Amino acid sequence: MEQNPDLHRMIQEMGERAQQAARKMVKLTSKRKNEILLSMAAELELRRDEILAANRKDLELAKAAGLSPAMVDRLTLTDRRFEAMAEGVRAVAALPDPVGKRIGKTVRPNGLVIEKRRVPIGVIAIIYESRPNVTADASVLCLKTSNAVIMRGGKEAFHSNHAIAAALQSGGEKAGLPAGALQLVATTDRDAVRELVQMDDRVDLAIPRGGESLIRAVMQYARVPVLKHYKGVCHIYVDSSADQAQAIKIIDNAKCQRPGTCNALETLLVDAQIANEFLPALGRWAKSAKVELRGCSKTVAAIPGCAAATAADWEKEYLALVLSVKVVNGVGAAIKHINRYGSHHSDSILTSDKRNANRFLKEVDSAAVYVNASTRFTDGGEFGMGAEMGISTDKIHARGPMGLEELTTYKYLVTGNGQIRQ
Amino acid sequence: MEQNPDLHRMIQEMGERAQQAARKMVKLTSKRKNEILLSMAAELELRRDEILAANRKDLELAKAAGLSPAMVDRLTLTDRRFEAMAEGVRAVAALPDPVGKRIGKTVRPNGLVIEKRRVPIGVIAIIYESRPNVTADASVLCLKTSNAVIMRGGKEAFHSNHAIAAALQSGGEKAGLPAGALQLVATTDRDAVRELVQMDDRVDLAIPRGGESLIRAVMQYARVPVLKHYKGVCHIYVDSSADQAQAIKIIDNAKCQRPGTCNALETLLVDAQIANEFLPALGRWAKSAKVELRGCSKTVAAIPGCAAATAADWEKEYLALVLSVKVVNGVGAAIKHINRYGSHHSDSILTSDKRNANRFLKEVDSAAVYVNASTRFTDGGEFGMGAEMGISTDKIHARGPMGLEELTTYKYLVTGNGQIRQ
Repeated sequence: MEQNPDLHRMIQEMGERAQQAARKMVKLTSKRKNEILLSMAAELELRRDEILAANRKDLELAKAAGLSPAMVDRLTLTDRRFEAMAEGVRAVAALPDPVGKRIGKTVRPNGLVIEKRRVPIGVIAIIYESRPNVTADASVLCLKTSNAVIMRGGKEAFHSNHAIAAALQSGGEKAGLPAGALQLVATTDRDAVRELVQMDDRVDLAIPRGGESLIRAVMQYARVPVLKHYKGVCHIYVDSSADQAQAIKIIDNAKCQRPGTCNALETLLVDAQIANEFLPALGRWAKSAKVELRGCSKTVAAIPGCAAATAADWEKEYLALVLSVKVVNGVGAAIKHINRYGSHHSDSILTSDKRNANRFLKEVDSAAVYVNASTRFTDGGEFGMGAEMGISTDKIHARGPMGLEELTTYKYLVTGNGQIRQ
Repeated sequence: MEQNPDLHRMIQEMGERAQQAARKMVKLTSKRKNEILLSMAAELELRRDEILAANRKDLELAKAAGLSPAMVDRLTLTDRRFEAMAEGVRAVAALPDPVGKRIGKTVRPNGLVIEKRRVPIGVIAIIYESRPNVTADASVLCLKTSNAVIMRGGKEAFHSNHAIAAALQSGGEKAGLPAGALQLVATTDRDAVRELVQMDDRVDLAIPRGGESLIRAVMQYARVPVLKHYKGVCHIYVDSSADQAQAIKIIDNAKCQRPGTCNALETLLVDAQIANEFLPALGRWAKSAKVELRGCSKTVAAIPGCAAATAADWEKEYLALVLSVKVVNGVGAAIKHINRYGSHHSDSILTSDKRNANRFLKEVDSAAVYVNASTRFTDGGEFGMGAEMGISTDKIHARGPMGLEELTTYKYLVTGNGQIRQ
């Protein structure tokens, strides 16, 4: 891989500044950090016109470049979105600070007192796509947990991101944020991402937020630890003992309430014992809800007009009003299908049989496993975390919605009075 | 990177078998897992002669190949080491099982009950060097926590490792261990390590155990998450308020009790305020303890015959009776030195000043930070974990000694009665 020496030096220097800032961040009290966040929110509002003008510049360039309406929508800072962004910063200030929290204590027979306490991770790199509000949302979660943050946003949002980051930096530094604690990569060169995620002596964690191709690009080069999720292929399994009317309501919610999200339903599994009864009802719902079904052979036979699913459909994240449907022989077959084709995100069983529920909870290898509820609840807010950095389908460090605690690590504080090892 | 298709297929198939075994492992009760471990210990003892004969074969090859006496010693299974290995398996059976443990519970306003429980990670790859007992020690920790394990040992211990793994497999399967749950890579081809740590759809975590060059080889290729430590450059800082007689005893313990370990002392920092008084006493201790000192200019001036440290010495893990010594201006300078040159492993302050102690605990960015104690205590056994998989100087997932809990992840179990998202 060829390397651009100027880019390399620039990213290395950003890492060095972030690391120095991180060393200072550990000294900030919760009170001071909250003052910093409130000052950031105030500065955002102060610079509202400037930020919205930068956003209009990005939007003009996006339209000229022929970006899709969906992309343009994601890029747009409406008044409501701007206010939500500033409010979001204040909401994070109001959350409890996990840093310093004691999560364990032992007194050893030799008198050593061993405490385990939450501490910041250090330097976190956030790599994201076109939503400019992520610049504020993600960075303040890092700062609240005393981490320094290096951000790299999508090139479409370049001007918006810079205006937002400049406001956050200026507002923060007025209230005592160390210089270098919040940095935005000032180039749209794609190689900057590679430089960032290979800097393992200065970056402690990378969190890519975006579509599967962004995540794969990060994973191709990463030498630093990464928390991520590739996609959400979420399942609902309708057991023979399920309340079928309730099942339709839950399926409708999981598929239709916001189909473009990672916790939306993509594949429905139906117990063979109730297929003849349930599938026609499902077909009527799909018709009225305008959901396109893609079924296994039994589903196709039971629902007039249902298309046949291809092999690829079972692994597909549609993010649209399309649903794969498969008839399976009981909970064991459902679990097997989910563990094989799923994405370890969120999966639900609808049942009134406690044994089947417990088996599903135990054997499905996903971040969130549900009984009799919509998969749409996998979300930091819905889980009561107050804020969310994203969702992890990894198993290491953080799994499922990532809140403030997931942005910390721990250390052991050992206090003695002269102990030596025998 | 050129790829050997046969090797690739072999490792992929091992991964597939491990993943299938892992799915079965989640169904094992604690009682059953302990029976499996006890059956493994019994089988080890049953095959004692066979295993020791395999070890003699490795030792002959090692001597013929001219391996160093230290290498040969690490490779040797003495009677005592063999017994300790079998006893170690029984000791792990006796430990409490972290799997299934509830680590959080919330009832949401909508009635959803959200539980957070410890679950196995899945498939763990262990990559290690010449000590054959690691084959038993490391694999049983993985199995105790319901993980499937793929091991890859050093080529010098090939026959020993195979004999041990065969005994563990056979003993385990007699008591219900799923086939594929414990596998040893059956080739000394170095590329097997690369294949193993790049198999990110089948391996959930890799733990390399060994010297810095092994860890760097793993990190060069790893696409799966890795828990590791490169080295232990541990510090003691003697504050002006320290009990100086006690300080010498702690330094002696941290440097000399077992100098080849990662938690042994490598660099001593001395507060300038007491340098003139403390350094001569240190020089006398070093002479009697046969410790070679490498000092900064002030240390060299104060201790007759002390060699001058080079720039490289401040980052050196000697693993021998050598100690770097530097005079610093107070606790702030000590913290700065440790965070810059240290390895984030274990560092200690000797002081009677509470403020300096607290500052050191807060600002030193290491897995274990001590007040008035030897750094040698950073160890799973000494921390009360019962067993240890190694020590992590990473910040993600596990930091410091890794016991059974660190070999688990968690999932969210969400129980409802028809909840849908509004």
